[in-house]
Amino acid sequence: MKIAVIGSGAIGAYYGARLLQAGHEVHFLFRSDYDHVLENGLRVDSVRGDMFFPQVNAYGRVEDMPRCDVVLVATKTTTNHLLEKLLPSVCGPGSVVVLMQNGLNGERTIDRLGLGVTVLGCLCFVCCNKIGPGHVAHLDYGKITIGHYLAGGSPAGVTPELERVAALFEGAGIPVEQCDDLILARWRKLFWNIAFNGPCALLGATTDLVVSCPATRRLTRELMAEVRAGALSMGREIPESFIDDILDSTDRMAPYKPSMMLDAENRRPLEVEAIYGEPLRTAEEHGVDLPAVRTIYLQLLFLDERLRSAS
Amino acid sequence: MKIAVIGSGAIGAYYGARLLQAGHEVHFLFRSDYDHVLENGLRVDSVRGDMFFPQVNAYGRVEDMPRCDVVLVATKTTTNHLLEKLLPSVCGPGSVVVLMQNGLNGERTIDRLGLGVTVLGCLCFVCCNKIGPGHVAHLDYGKITIGHYLAGGSPAGVTPELERVAALFEGAGIPVEQCDDLILARWRKLFWNIAFNGPCALLGATTDLVVSCPATRRLTRELMAEVRAGALSMGREIPESFIDDILDSTDRMAPYKPSMMLDAENRRPLEVEAIYGEPLRTAEEHGVDLPAVRTIYLQLLFLDERLRSAS
Repeated sequence: MKIAVIGSGAIGAYYGARLLQAGHEVHFLFRSDYDHVLENGLRVDSVRGDMFFPQVNAYGRVEDMPRCDVVLVATKTTTNHLLEKLLPSVCGPGSVVVLMQNGLNGERTIDRLGLGVTVLGCLCFVCCNKIGPGHVAHLDYGKITIGHYLAGGSPAGVTPELERVAALFEGAGIPVEQCDDLILARWRKLFWNIAFNGPCALLGATTDLVVSCPATRRLTRELMAEVRAGALSMGREIPESFIDDILDSTDRMAPYKPSMMLDAENRRPLEVEAIYGEPLRTAEEHGVDLPAVRTIYLQLLFLDERLRSAS
Repeated sequence: MKIAVIGSGAIGAYYGARLLQAGHEVHFLFRSDYDHVLENGLRVDSVRGDMFFPQVNAYGRVEDMPRCDVVLVATKTTTNHLLEKLLPSVCGPGSVVVLMQNGLNGERTIDRLGLGVTVLGCLCFVCCNKIGPGHVAHLDYGKITIGHYLAGGSPAGVTPELERVAALFEGAGIPVEQCDDLILARWRKLFWNIAFNGPCALLGATTDLVVSCPATRRLTRELMAEVRAGALSMGREIPESFIDDILDSTDRMAPYKPSMMLDAENRRPLEVEAIYGEPLRTAEEHGVDLPAVRTIYLQLLFLDERLRSAS
């Protein structure tokens, strides 16, 4: 079985390296790190055991990659418009594409390419960062949740393709939760992502500051209440107590910079559309307005535009 | 007739100086600039003619001031909790207090002190800044709108007290609009203040950047639509076209830093409650929710708390 990793940043490199370590044939598509990895290999410093591969199947152009059975897509959502060029040559009719991204509607984008592939969505509960070219640090966690995507977003249940991919990751020592309703899992993850990514990026504040100030704690509650309404607009009911659960767990976290805050600090494009724009529009299409989410969204678009024009 | 200026920052010093220049007896309460003004006088560089007064009636403590007939209150709204200490000794039973501040509900605060005074509200359409101790620059505009405040906020019409104070300012060369509904005038001014002060302060962006980015232009529209709903909740109907009027006039303005942005840059307390909190709560009391305004408000409270704890 051949596995492709499209986008070998922190997430792609970490999970790809775990699969490689388990003995699988893994092909990595790199962008800026390609030359460095060819010469120096791929390095992952991990709390679950360091990994170093002096030679990996590294590619700088997707056209040079073989057709693969499992295609892990771990690019940033800000480049999803490129997927129509990246996926066709690496996918065959029986391929399974696993989208390892945050946010909403990425699977729909892939499904609409009409490649005849199976599309799975994957949520990564992992803390890892790229700390140098071809060099990733895995700091904590690592569990993934995978679900089968069906056009239209209705729950797919646990399918054979999902079980096969779950077994693949589990065989590489990665904890996997199989979920029978991918859209529900995505909305559940949006609670935290919408409540913290934007406010932390806009205010230049780590999560501990946001939850300990009564005003922004209330803001996160209001954002999460709107996310809950958005999920409900798609028929996914998430209990109100989930908001308290998230605040409790964030209270217990060490001071943390969400990915969007790191992107802003490093003047990289922000994942505004996947995390804010798509949920907002999806809820609107179902007749539900999310005004607090939109207020954050519009500010983030401004910040993103300024970051792009500055770089 | 004796005139007091309580809070001789940019606004208080400018209008006080105009009245002084017109020959009135004006008593200025200073805070940090007291010693400097005693020694060096009060200086106003104005597009309508510079003014310099080597000796003014300057005070460092309100207890030293005489009772005055007209008391101009030009302190920052962030210190309005001090008014109960500042006003009693300078006001007599027949005094008229003129509140020269932005935002909502400041007149109610004064009225509830039970001093038996007449309370007028005054909106200043002026561009002036303090550029040094006892030194103010008046850059543009200067018109004021004055209205008579009645407990409960119902329209008072044009009263004799209002006409008297309007004549006082007009006699000093200041253009005055007498308004028969102060609360309406305050809500009209909140359109611009709510749309631009918070977003500019939070995003660190001048008005031209905010109106030229489609996302934040839309944000200002949504904020102003909510302000309009807030005004309507108090029975004040402002036409929807007012939103376009404000955007048009802001398009024509030179790049501008609203006062709250300047306060943030200079690590001074932000007028969050007067400009955001009071309108928000007032609308809520009348059964109208302003979620976009609240989202900005909660972010500003966070920013304000950090500015205060940093200084």
